[in-house]
Amino acid sequence: MRLLGGRWRLLIVSYLINGPKRFSALRRCIPAISQRMLTLDLRALEEAGLVTRTIFPTVPATVEYALAADGDRLVPVVDAMRAFGLWLKEREAGQDPEDP
Amino acid sequence: MRLLGGRWRLLIVSYLINGPKRFSALRRCIPAISQRMLTLDLRALEEAGLVTRTIFPTVPATVEYALAADGDRLVPVVDAMRAFGLWLKEREAGQDPEDP
Repeated sequence: MRLLGGRWRLLIVSYLINGPKRFSALRRCIPAISQRMLTLDLRALEEAGLVTRTIFPTVPATVEYALAADGDRLVPVVDAMRAFGLWLKEREAGQDPEDP
Repeated sequence: MRLLGGRWRLLIVSYLINGPKRFSALRRCIPAISQRMLTLDLRALEEAGLVTRTIFPTVPATVEYALAADGDRLVPVVDAMRAFGLWLKEREAGQDPEDP
């Protein structure tokens, strides 16, 4: 549980499910996260073997993050979290039908 | 997502799925959490309508926390997280069968 305890880690994983992303692209996806926190979270996910980091020898170097094979284990967690998040958003936005 | 972003919130919910619990019992379930953090997390879950707080007029007063009806929406999230946690634990404990 501790591995996913960070506020942003599951969110980071959710953005990687759709395909590899550069550091800068992840930052654009999650504007509220600091550069330092994103670095630390990605490192923790990498050390747990859930995310891979690939460095491309461009100038300047391009660093791409992707979900590792084991990272697929997180898909059900992200899905369940996403469904809950949508329900919460709808509940906040919608009016109670019994209370017109 | 922010609601569940706290390191302990889903863990707290997971302990309430089995039935209502007093504050002190929750602290025993999660020894690593501070009293202050548990208070704040329970308050956030209560404000989101996911957890109820009942005060019994004993001396001293007994305060019991329970999953609210809407809290059931969290069960799939807790289940998915638990399955992932078990897989992670097994992976850490077990040896790779292809690598004797």
